[in-house]
Amino acid sequence: MDTKQVKVHNKTMIAGIIGATGYAGAELVRLLYRHPEIEKLALSSVSFEGEFIQDVYPSFLNNISYPLLKAEEVITLSDVVFSALPHGVGEPYAAACMERRIHFIDLSADFRFDDDEEVYSAWYGKKYQFSELHKKSVYGLTEFNRRRIKELSASGPVIVGNPGCYPTGASLGAYPALSKGLIDGDSRLPIIINSVSGASGGGREPSRSFHYSECADSVSPYKVASHRHSPEIARNIAAMACFSGGNAPRVIFTPHLAPMNRGILSAIYIPLSEKWRITSGPVLPPSKDNEEAAEKIRELYKDFYKNEPFIRVLPADLSAATNRVRQSNYCDISVHLDINGSTLIVITAIDNMVKGAAGQAVQNMNVLYGFDEKSGLEAIPMLF
Amino acid sequence: MDTKQVKVHNKTMIAGIIGATGYAGAELVRLLYRHPEIEKLALSSVSFEGEFIQDVYPSFLNNISYPLLKAEEVITLSDVVFSALPHGVGEPYAAACMERRIHFIDLSADFRFDDDEEVYSAWYGKKYQFSELHKKSVYGLTEFNRRRIKELSASGPVIVGNPGCYPTGASLGAYPALSKGLIDGDSRLPIIINSVSGASGGGREPSRSFHYSECADSVSPYKVASHRHSPEIARNIAAMACFSGGNAPRVIFTPHLAPMNRGILSAIYIPLSEKWRITSGPVLPPSKDNEEAAEKIRELYKDFYKNEPFIRVLPADLSAATNRVRQSNYCDISVHLDINGSTLIVITAIDNMVKGAAGQAVQNMNVLYGFDEKSGLEAIPMLF
Amino acid sequence: MDTKQVKVHNKTMIAGIIGATGYAGAELVRLLYRHPEIEKLALSSVSFEGEFIQDVYPSFLNNISYPLLKAEEVITLSDVVFSALPHGVGEPYAAACMERRIHFIDLSADFRFDDDEEVYSAWYGKKYQFSELHKKSVYGLTEFNRRRIKELSASGPVIVGNPGCYPTGASLGAYPALSKGLIDGDSRLPIIINSVSGASGGGREPSRSFHYSECADSVSPYKVASHRHSPEIARNIAAMACFSGGNAPRVIFTPHLAPMNRGILSAIYIPLSEKWRITSGPVLPPSKDNEEAAEKIRELYKDFYKNEPFIRVLPADLSAATNRVRQSNYCDISVHLDINGSTLIVITAIDNMVKGAAGQAVQNMNVLYGFDEKSGLEAIPMLF
Amino acid sequence: MDTKQVKVHNKTMIAGIIGATGYAGAELVRLLYRHPEIEKLALSSVSFEGEFIQDVYPSFLNNISYPLLKAEEVITLSDVVFSALPHGVGEPYAAACMERRIHFIDLSADFRFDDDEEVYSAWYGKKYQFSELHKKSVYGLTEFNRRRIKELSASGPVIVGNPGCYPTGASLGAYPALSKGLIDGDSRLPIIINSVSGASGGGREPSRSFHYSECADSVSPYKVASHRHSPEIARNIAAMACFSGGNAPRVIFTPHLAPMNRGILSAIYIPLSEKWRITSGPVLPPSKDNEEAAEKIRELYKDFYKNEPFIRVLPADLSAATNRVRQSNYCDISVHLDINGSTLIVITAIDNMVKGAAGQAVQNMNVLYGFDEKSGLEAIPMLF
Repeated sequence: MDTKQVKVHNKTMIAGIIGATGYAGAELVRLLYRHPEIEKLALSSVSFEGEFIQDVYPSFLNNISYPLLKAEEVITLSDVVFSALPHGVGEPYAAACMERRIHFIDLSADFRFDDDEEVYSAWYGKKYQFSELHKKSVYGLTEFNRRRIKELSASGPVIVGNPGCYPTGASLGAYPALSKGLIDGDSRLPIIINSVSGASGGGREPSRSFHYSECADSVSPYKVASHRHSPEIARNIAAMACFSGGNAPRVIFTPHLAPMNRGILSAIYIPLSEKWRITSGPVLPPSKDNEEAAEKIRELYKDFYKNEPFIRVLPADLSAATNRVRQSNYCDISVHLDINGSTLIVITAIDNMVKGAAGQAVQNMNVLYGFDEKSGLEAIPMLF
Repeated sequence: MDTKQVKVHNKTMIAGIIGATGYAGAELVRLLYRHPEIEKLALSSVSFEGEFIQDVYPSFLNNISYPLLKAEEVITLSDVVFSALPHGVGEPYAAACMERRIHFIDLSADFRFDDDEEVYSAWYGKKYQFSELHKKSVYGLTEFNRRRIKELSASGPVIVGNPGCYPTGASLGAYPALSKGLIDGDSRLPIIINSVSGASGGGREPSRSFHYSECADSVSPYKVASHRHSPEIARNIAAMACFSGGNAPRVIFTPHLAPMNRGILSAIYIPLSEKWRITSGPVLPPSKDNEEAAEKIRELYKDFYKNEPFIRVLPADLSAATNRVRQSNYCDISVHLDINGSTLIVITAIDNMVKGAAGQAVQNMNVLYGFDEKSGLEAIPMLF
Repeated sequence: MDTKQVKVHNKTMIAGIIGATGYAGAELVRLLYRHPEIEKLALSSVSFEGEFIQDVYPSFLNNISYPLLKAEEVITLSDVVFSALPHGVGEPYAAACMERRIHFIDLSADFRFDDDEEVYSAWYGKKYQFSELHKKSVYGLTEFNRRRIKELSASGPVIVGNPGCYPTGASLGAYPALSKGLIDGDSRLPIIINSVSGASGGGREPSRSFHYSECADSVSPYKVASHRHSPEIARNIAAMACFSGGNAPRVIFTPHLAPMNRGILSAIYIPLSEKWRITSGPVLPPSKDNEEAAEKIRELYKDFYKNEPFIRVLPADLSAATNRVRQSNYCDISVHLDINGSTLIVITAIDNMVKGAAGQAVQNMNVLYGFDEKSGLEAIPMLF
Repeated sequence: MDTKQVKVHNKTMIAGIIGATGYAGAELVRLLYRHPEIEKLALSSVSFEGEFIQDVYPSFLNNISYPLLKAEEVITLSDVVFSALPHGVGEPYAAACMERRIHFIDLSADFRFDDDEEVYSAWYGKKYQFSELHKKSVYGLTEFNRRRIKELSASGPVIVGNPGCYPTGASLGAYPALSKGLIDGDSRLPIIINSVSGASGGGREPSRSFHYSECADSVSPYKVASHRHSPEIARNIAAMACFSGGNAPRVIFTPHLAPMNRGILSAIYIPLSEKWRITSGPVLPPSKDNEEAAEKIRELYKDFYKNEPFIRVLPADLSAATNRVRQSNYCDISVHLDINGSTLIVITAIDNMVKGAAGQAVQNMNVLYGFDEKSGLEAIPMLF
């Protein structure tokens, strides 16, 4: 047996989830339980070890019933391991998985900055413990890194750093514009990303910010100019811009909390290069020229994403909305041109718990194993 | 009797409200009913003529009881008239009020673009009917035009074009930066305004967009690059910039709908001029320099608004939130500097029905009559 | 070929949905699209004829794409027909299906009162048009009528009168108590059912009652003592009581609207017969006796429903909650004994659009065709 | 100076609030700050001692600014003291106030069961520390005990046990029926009270039950048959029944949590005595007889409460709704007769933080001092 190879898939594939009782962990349970290639789950929890997952989430009653084990036990039992632990504690488990020759998909930030420990440690307050692991890892924005994820899986077990929820919606919205050189290269023109998230993004632990009476019926920004997803978004956008020979633009990111359960809506403001701008006079309703220029860019987006199973570039009469992607792995994108003709406005909507966390992790597993990328992710968005 | 003078205030002052059964009209009823200088109300409604206001709004039972009359009757009975009619139908009533020598405060857009019929008619699809009225009118963003409103009232009856809800929050947030020359004059650097509104902004008439099941638990933008408040915001910002000798910057405005009853939160992105920028390297958490530069601008904002009774510039550890201004006439402002050091992020929160509509109208009445500007507007925001 | 037989199932089974663009119709589309035995759908809509379902529900984009036909075309194309039309218009389509020898599952009230045209016409304001159809029909509360539905399907095409949403939750909660003779037979002791529904129950058509600003952040009853589901609930409870030799108890039903999208929570107060009561003194916290008596009844409920795939009788430490059944076909039931020892309190939670409408309709189709009853209904409730 | 007399009111009356940073305490701050007879506040907080109230509640910025002191300091400074402390800790402060000859209004349960220490200690797990205090205290359901509160205040300082939120809405709804002998005296016919509360009732401390993602978009009961307001409701109803010569009926109470900020809606099911019942046949829509019988009872309710400033008995076409009393001290009551003619259904709506807590406390203060009972409580309910 060639120990350099990752464990092959067989009919009794077991997926392990470390940290299964947080929101992202539980959403992974829900998705993987119905995944056609997964036979069983193995779950761990520090807080609820010894109990059953359905005791913590009674929604699962009569369906899903697994004991909550120790992380080490889960790793021993599993063919692939997902980690939904908090930032900064997962590296030893990643190391253990590498040793066992099984893939490790990490939903924390620990493997999102592999080239840049300085940025990681500045924002997350920790140094890398196992530096060599960060050479085996890949950033799991599937639509951007699909090929690399696949390639790495050919030569051994892989660590996937699953993206943050905000960076997913922001990066997918900017990607075509950056790749196709639509953006003005002038370094003084920033890309501005204004995002609104539902409360499930705050996780399961009660706190004042997510106490019903404090956040219901209200909208507010938080961590303005200081959210930890800022460097991840900036890095992604730089990579996408450089990929097409452009400069890394400045990026401004402001997250907000809105009174909804799930969803992230991002408005992405991209300054257009001269070629894509149209001239405009006073502030009048969108002209026919404006609409045509918008449609041209919309078509470019549609073409760019035409083979992507989870990206829907919407027609001109629709704007992206979080309730139309709820519980699905879709990223809906609507493309607009400002009336002044010089700024592209891209709106993206994702379910923060699915495409923004657990769903994308499953998508990455599908890529790693060569499964149909849609396996286990075929939920149609709820209507209401 | 000098007929050039406006009717003087006396103990039996009657305030008229035309269109009293829409949301803005009803909010005016609620505020004016408790106004210490108003003795009585006279209300009109096209849809409910002949009924009583408390039949349409049972919240008013045991408190407010007025029959719903014709608009003409209201004008005859009143000492000051507020119009909460839809856009495009109020001019004849304004004319009637001018003839009767009483002030007319219009909550529609009809008197917001007095210098620019072209822009008004392009966005609202109507020409002015009574051109001369637009020479007697003043735009009622109180903090910007207080002096002019007061001056005009000295020489006869005044028409006040009460601002739109979004323009109020956007303009008050940008005003100090524009007045004090903080903004970069380069015309390629736009001011971006990303706003989120509660559903009461959609008015009382049922529609699909505001049907509970379609908008609850979801956030989405609407009328991207085509909302009628865009030209009003652009005009205000141009006026504020020019006032301090600057150029009119390009303005980009995107409104969103969030599942809350009241409130508008606006994130305003303002490119800083070289003097106010600080240099920055990689995307790291805010440096001490950054925090100091932010504080300097925050102090400037505090100083700028130090005499304003309804504007609260928040301390560094708070971000503006809509639930902290709910039912009050406050505009809360929080001032932030992006980590890249070159963009000012100003967040404003107002109650769209109060400072964004009925409250500001009352504030303008207070200015017109020389009442304490806070009269009738002293509600403390509800806590939750 | 024996024309008396209903069309047999084959690999290309087509399900037709008449009235596919209302909320219940669209939910049927979502469920049937993923049903393993259904190959295709045929959809009709009066309002949107000629358009596509995904234009009306953009949530379906990239998944579900069907043109909206005429009802007659749908009947011609289909092997089974679901009707999600309003009350009072579906009989001719039922007749057409009977003629074509295909099953007809009606989500309206038209076939819920087959034995009692008087009650139907008193509440719904219509007489039966095709009286003979009401002899071929069966009330589709699956857990109560499963055998009869199955039997009827053996001898020809069947019309299923799918239950109302409130009657489903109310009847399933009362059924074991009524069947097992727990209820006090004294006719002066009513069963009281206090239900709270989400806004999707109001359907897709905008109206004042379901306008966001009028119903958000508020709870209120509606149609107190006059809701059309009252006679359906009373009839079901009478049938269940008589089945076990008891009298038909009086039933009181009060529906409320709460600010949530989906779900019906029903609190069902059932006076216990002497045998099941326990004595109690002053109002003290539940005694051990009380807890044991409650557990005994809880066990009886568990046993009663032990083979039901969609009914979950919860353990003592849980109360039914609508968010734990969201998007699933489950009816969660929690069983409690009042501290005074003489009244059983049963709480049921269903998703009004699934078990309360489209899901139960699919469940009935599964019974008619002998499919696994869970086919197409295996969604695990969303966690949040 | 006659030390037996309570401190008289003077122009510089200071109201003290112990426990001012919980939700009920903060709502008291908001109401008392605008009370025309109160000049100043003195506030205490254990958690935030040394900070200012506006730091804890930034909604108060620019309005209310008071340091948070020790409870003992507040008592020394104040002319009247409100306690918004948790249950079981306030007696020593009540004793201190009695010693200082000032009224003490307690929002906890500590003085709600003065005649019945057994029930209190069974539900709240504490014995009385200062038994003699409970002889000086009065239960503060103002509409029921107004005279007694007033009388007690004539002879010295008074302790008011302010009612629980649920008991307020439940008792006010049942009071006329009980007083006027509408209820069937048969002890086997219970009064059933089914209540739904907003999340502010859970207080300010974060917990899983009130974590946004766990309670938004969902309704569920809690503490079924074991809520501590059960004995308080039962005691009130017994007192009201006995008052008119009737027996104490059994009472069943079930509280629910709904996704709204404020409000309690209670549906109260009262079995009618033979005199008030009407006969009815099958379950048909309400007959004219039924409507007339309902109107008769409605008129009786209107008459019963005709002098009450805060109780609104609604006309036949309206049901009580929480959003129509939001932020006011109103209790809205709608009166209905079930279609079976034998059960009265009374719906009450209050704002749990106002009439259900802080507002009623202020109302009691007004009674104690002979102020206009509406002083400080004149807020008109918000419309939306």
